[in-house]
Amino acid sequence: MAQVRQVQDPQSEELIKAIQISLIVKIRPVLDKVVTDMYTAMRPRTMVVADLGCSSGPNTLTFVSSVIRAIGDYCRRSDCDQPPDLQFFLNDTPSNDFNSLFRAIDQFKKMVVVGKPNARKTARKTPSHYVVGLAGSFYRRLFPRRTLPIELKVSSKTHMNRENIYITKTTPPSVVRMYQEQFDFSHFLKLRSEELVLGGRMLLTFHGRKNNDVFYGDLNHLYGLLGEAIQSLVMEGLVDKERLDSFNLPIYGPSVDEVHKIIKQSELFNINQIQLFESNWDPDDDSDGNHVPNAIQSGMNVAKCLRAVMEPLFVSHFGECILDKIFQMYARNVSKHLEKEKTNYSVIVVSLKGNNRSLRVTSSTKLENTSKP
Amino acid sequence: MAQVRQVQDPQSEELIKAIQISLIVKIRPVLDKVVTDMYTAMRPRTMVVADLGCSSGPNTLTFVSSVIRAIGDYCRRSDCDQPPDLQFFLNDTPSNDFNSLFRAIDQFKKMVVVGKPNARKTARKTPSHYVVGLAGSFYRRLFPRRTLPIELKVSSKTHMNRENIYITKTTPPSVVRMYQEQFDFSHFLKLRSEELVLGGRMLLTFHGRKNNDVFYGDLNHLYGLLGEAIQSLVMEGLVDKERLDSFNLPIYGPSVDEVHKIIKQSELFNINQIQLFESNWDPDDDSDGNHVPNAIQSGMNVAKCLRAVMEPLFVSHFGECILDKIFQMYARNVSKHLEKEKTNYSVIVVSLKGNNRSLRVTSSTKLENTSKP
Repeated sequence: MAQVRQVQDPQSEELIKAIQISLIVKIRPVLDKVVTDMYTAMRPRTMVVADLGCSSGPNTLTFVSSVIRAIGDYCRRSDCDQPPDLQFFLNDTPSNDFNSLFRAIDQFKKMVVVGKPNARKTARKTPSHYVVGLAGSFYRRLFPRRTLPIELKVSSKTHMNRENIYITKTTPPSVVRMYQEQFDFSHFLKLRSEELVLGGRMLLTFHGRKNNDVFYGDLNHLYGLLGEAIQSLVMEGLVDKERLDSFNLPIYGPSVDEVHKIIKQSELFNINQIQLFESNWDPDDDSDGNHVPNAIQSGMNVAKCLRAVMEPLFVSHFGECILDKIFQMYARNVSKHLEKEKTNYSVIVVSLKGNNRSLRVTSSTKLENTSKP
Repeated sequence: MAQVRQVQDPQSEELIKAIQISLIVKIRPVLDKVVTDMYTAMRPRTMVVADLGCSSGPNTLTFVSSVIRAIGDYCRRSDCDQPPDLQFFLNDTPSNDFNSLFRAIDQFKKMVVVGKPNARKTARKTPSHYVVGLAGSFYRRLFPRRTLPIELKVSSKTHMNRENIYITKTTPPSVVRMYQEQFDFSHFLKLRSEELVLGGRMLLTFHGRKNNDVFYGDLNHLYGLLGEAIQSLVMEGLVDKERLDSFNLPIYGPSVDEVHKIIKQSELFNINQIQLFESNWDPDDDSDGNHVPNAIQSGMNVAKCLRAVMEPLFVSHFGECILDKIFQMYARNVSKHLEKEKTNYSVIVVSLKGNNRSLRVTSSTKLENTSKP
């Protein structure tokens, strides 16, 4: 799974911020419901909340502040005596910039209380919050439980996905299966169910697809155009063909049905809500219709965002020198595509509750959120 | 309290490593006893362990590995079925380099199991461990509890400590009181007692003094010589007199009696053990007698260590340009002193157990360790 890492270009940072804000605004009602439902059901003294894949960008703490606000608002509305303490675990891989994240927390703590018209009254009902950083992959155990961790299955087979970097109509079935296995959502659910307390909730957000056909999903377009950009550089002799053939993007966009089926099969969680949100590829384009007002600018914006997210991955496989060329070509491909057809990202939001029949042993109430798949 | 921050000079790093290792070796039996006593008394499924003031140097994870080893060894000896899960909270101020700390953890995890002759059997009894980073001052609340946090008392009075940077025989009583108030150990104990579970343990290590006289402790020598170095630069017109007069090192070395008295008065903890360890100022000098074999080299080593620890503080008050001169002069002062008299650091180690009469509400077993005061 690719992650946003220390974006250097301010414009890219602004664009990614815009994507995140639009996502947060859409998800907020679902998040508010999960948080207040769990609080009213369990009334814990301390609520432990984990944000898996938190990143370290400008909006990382928006999730934290949304939970604080949801609980604080609920306590003000229901006139409860004392809000619960909130303990946040912000998780990402060890390559994430936790130093800047920690420096942001102090600043953030002041913002939560100060600057509101009725700050003193607000502060009284604002939950105390304690934020910690947790470095590690969420495909491994992150929190203690009673039995030993299960190891990740790692496949050593090399899957050649000729001339493509994601699933296209020419992708062989063995490669499609590899993508689906790599998504490994059932393993993720198993790990989390071992960590979650009885009645714990989980809110998941990830890129998915509207269409059930694995060859024609929303990400197939987006990454298909990126694959074509690299193909044309192969034709020009600038990229080695084997480099392209042996590269598979470590990303998979499942359909709502696929997600639904895996959760049901796992028997570990009950689905409270599952929903698909859509947003324009270009976060700067807030038009609603089927027409893209400025396809050239939108192409450049999409390329900037994707480059910011993918850069470390692309540098390690294709080398740094060719990056400018790849993403310039990609911007042109996206522009041409958007002139013909406006296309969206699809984001799946799932609200889950632990299935009481399964064994859970941790000692605190936990709510988990995975964003930025 | 000054802390080691991203030491640039490899020689200084080596010297600091030597100090830490010598301290760890001395403390290990006390730590082993605290850890196994608590485990046998409570048999928790998950033990939460906090390292307050963890820093990010080469030995930060030695504390973590000591606890893992102590529990693992105990479980092997007593043939218990399943060791507890260990959850570590590594705390330091937000300026600490948590990124390098997190990168070290992955490497460390492999080292815990691999490389031992009977690795498979060892692995079976090695506790699963989960390490998180917690940025913040330990003079504030770091963990959730039931009631609102108490705010730190902050004194706005300026205390002029003429021509000194620490307590010397000419320091006015008001400044001595300021040092003692700033140490604020009772406030620290109150915060921790609110976070610790019933029966939780705390192991504290800090620089102190053998002598009961506040004007003639071990740190008075060490920092007195540093004050004299700056005084001579004032005489040369290189440092402004007011800069020196208005500077007080934010460090205080209490006596064993003082520590004992504050703990008793707090009524929050029972003392299991209190002990004073001594080690040579120069970590490279492992001689036992009263003679320093190479006083010039030792002076330079002591200055290097202290500079590595104090640099950020000195830069912000005296400016970067004068630093080389201050510490060259200091190295000379230390050498001259060591030629006449070999002097030691005194480190106080206190093992505490929560007093059952006080209210504690957190949900897990906690063991706290403050090192590098």
